[in-house]
Amino acid sequence: MRMVDIILKKRDGNALSKEEIDFFVSNYTKGNIPDYQVSALLMAIYFRSMNEEETFYLTEAMLNSGDILDLSSIEGVKVDKHSTGGVGDKVSLIVGPIVASCGLKLAKMSGRGLGHTGGTLDKLESIPGMKVKLSERAFIKQVNQIGMAIISQSENLDPADKKLYALRDVTGTVDSYPLIASSIMSKKLASGADTILLDVKYGNGAFMKTIDEACELARIMVKIGDYFNKDTRAEITSMEEPLGKAIGNILEVKEAVETLKGNGPSDLVELCLSSCATIFEQAKLVSTHKAGIELAKRQIENLEAYEEFKRFVKAQGGDIDYIEDLEKFPVARYQKDLLSTKKGYVTALDALKVGTAAMKLGAGREKYDDKIDYTAGIYLNKKVGDKVEVGEPICTIFTEKPGYDEIAIELMDAYKIGDKRPSKHPMVERLIK
Amino acid sequence: MRMVDIILKKRDGNALSKEEIDFFVSNYTKGNIPDYQVSALLMAIYFRSMNEEETFYLTEAMLNSGDILDLSSIEGVKVDKHSTGGVGDKVSLIVGPIVASCGLKLAKMSGRGLGHTGGTLDKLESIPGMKVKLSERAFIKQVNQIGMAIISQSENLDPADKKLYALRDVTGTVDSYPLIASSIMSKKLASGADTILLDVKYGNGAFMKTIDEACELARIMVKIGDYFNKDTRAEITSMEEPLGKAIGNILEVKEAVETLKGNGPSDLVELCLSSCATIFEQAKLVSTHKAGIELAKRQIENLEAYEEFKRFVKAQGGDIDYIEDLEKFPVARYQKDLLSTKKGYVTALDALKVGTAAMKLGAGREKYDDKIDYTAGIYLNKKVGDKVEVGEPICTIFTEKPGYDEIAIELMDAYKIGDKRPSKHPMVERLIK
Repeated sequence: MRMVDIILKKRDGNALSKEEIDFFVSNYTKGNIPDYQVSALLMAIYFRSMNEEETFYLTEAMLNSGDILDLSSIEGVKVDKHSTGGVGDKVSLIVGPIVASCGLKLAKMSGRGLGHTGGTLDKLESIPGMKVKLSERAFIKQVNQIGMAIISQSENLDPADKKLYALRDVTGTVDSYPLIASSIMSKKLASGADTILLDVKYGNGAFMKTIDEACELARIMVKIGDYFNKDTRAEITSMEEPLGKAIGNILEVKEAVETLKGNGPSDLVELCLSSCATIFEQAKLVSTHKAGIELAKRQIENLEAYEEFKRFVKAQGGDIDYIEDLEKFPVARYQKDLLSTKKGYVTALDALKVGTAAMKLGAGREKYDDKIDYTAGIYLNKKVGDKVEVGEPICTIFTEKPGYDEIAIELMDAYKIGDKRPSKHPMVERLIK
Repeated sequence: MRMVDIILKKRDGNALSKEEIDFFVSNYTKGNIPDYQVSALLMAIYFRSMNEEETFYLTEAMLNSGDILDLSSIEGVKVDKHSTGGVGDKVSLIVGPIVASCGLKLAKMSGRGLGHTGGTLDKLESIPGMKVKLSERAFIKQVNQIGMAIISQSENLDPADKKLYALRDVTGTVDSYPLIASSIMSKKLASGADTILLDVKYGNGAFMKTIDEACELARIMVKIGDYFNKDTRAEITSMEEPLGKAIGNILEVKEAVETLKGNGPSDLVELCLSSCATIFEQAKLVSTHKAGIELAKRQIENLEAYEEFKRFVKAQGGDIDYIEDLEKFPVARYQKDLLSTKKGYVTALDALKVGTAAMKLGAGREKYDDKIDYTAGIYLNKKVGDKVEVGEPICTIFTEKPGYDEIAIELMDAYKIGDKRPSKHPMVERLIK
């Protein structure tokens, strides 16, 4: 088999066989096929796409390229969730403790943030002492003991995806449905859970720009899950405005803790309850979504989820004094309220602009090796639908960098204020299963 | 400027600017841009193509990537010709001496053969003593003294094309009009001639499969020539059957010499005369094509072209005893006549099959480092339109390899014999200028 023939076959619009896909993935992972042939194939895939079978085979080849986690020694239903990434997305920090407090097991591997979207690992590491690198043995032991763990992806999990993703990133071949779907699903499947809930976001702060694109990607991923006999469902959620009010690592941890104590912002609460309900349904803990919502609410009200979060932080070395007294967290040197110059209702709040501003303030990375400032971020006092008066603070900037004036202007530009209160959409617009 | 943005721009169907094209060509040539980004861009160009301006800019960037030959010290009109390659194409060995014998100057850089098409350099090197590596100074001196030289491309001529072509070859991005056109024309333009005649072949033995594809490629190349103010014309010729009767290096040199002595096969003679006539028109030596044909014929009849060929061989170190007595050339150990099993007319003679058979007999290279057997080849006793009887030899195999039975079967399969004599087409089907 010659790689150039595989490239030509795909370039000319033909479907690749399982053998051809296995050949290129395994040989690329081993270093036997050069980057320049793979990038040409990836661009051909961008233009010609892949059918369902090809996508299944690609996912399978990738997940088989490295270690596959064996969670069989963990008792109970192992659940997993994954978000395609958005601004202010701290859902895992809330949903994890809720479902674990009900006896489900969340053995989650997560990633770091890049660009305008935050990463769960960075948020966790903003809690003093918190470790996200655990051996597989310690990881499994922790999940068995307290019901949950969130760690960084182990070194040899899905090495094909690591190589392919790095290559796609620099060759303009990221946004291809089969490539995105197989990248996400191969990692999830290699992580060994029984059920997978995907949060596929759309909107200008998300990778998918329209709801139709998000649905298309979600459908492919759910089909991949079905192919591998995993209960896989996908919620389609809007990322036109950021999720919740807090953007930035410490600010988001605080908001997550407040949400677990029953004081969360309405959009974040709505999404977390719905996600928990779907996970409960997947695990057959409840028979209706409504019953799932009630169960999740109860776990917040009785503080079981909050207690579970503290157990989780403690188990991974975090200092729970900070969780019990959020005032202990360091705060940014500069805090600046941005005041509204208009009266009316917030009609739009551009998630991409907010995310980019937060990144520039120090909350995120522009490049892989950028250092994050955990105190940096933005607090959104006003969100879409809220009434504002002239001179009222619509958001607050937190940063260690003195020269934030330009960022403040960009941030003000993210807000659109009009005369009419805009209509509200449900957080989970569609559920694909 | 970031290479990934250039890839994305082309991928999304936008035209690249001169600056972007210069950036990627010059930085790729210098080794500042990795192969994997360039191959992704090439595949995007395959799918999105390039408009005329982009193709001009690409050609310009490539020709400026290395040395540009300065032929200004050569007196008279410097003409050049290029064939896109076919089976049995020894036209340069005939046209060169004819036009040089009329006072035109042919300072030609040529290539080696790969696959089923032969290379002019290999044919020249089958003449004992013949050198194809000359310093620029010796090259120019020879052209000034005797009117012609054919040498291998100098090391630093169009290095961008060398790198790009090698990459295209292994990444499935060879067959793109703007990439082919800019590759050919950048080399021709860097070679410094005043006029360029292109022979764009079509048919199953050629790179372009249909006459429409050949015309499309020819039009782009002529436009590139116009952009650089060079008189550029393209003849569109069929490569459905091989050119002439001899395939293989020594066999082709012998046929070229016979043609220069007035004993050439009709198709080869027709094409050579027409090519010479067009070159004479480009050089303003004649005012009509008909007058050009007459002039070329005269140079054969009066043996001026033959004498010029001997001067050329001698100047480059070749032993003209072989030219004056063609019987001196070594002959292949095995010579085998293939006999017709049918009576009728040759209705088709598959050039690709003949070329591939010749390559397998030892006349060509499958890989770059394969060694050529100069005596190997095929002599086509019968060509399209010829009458054949049962038991009559239709072609003869020449090889050093004893196990040629399978090749003989493939070669027989190249011949189609039917009841009706097929109609003849002119050799030059169209002329684009």
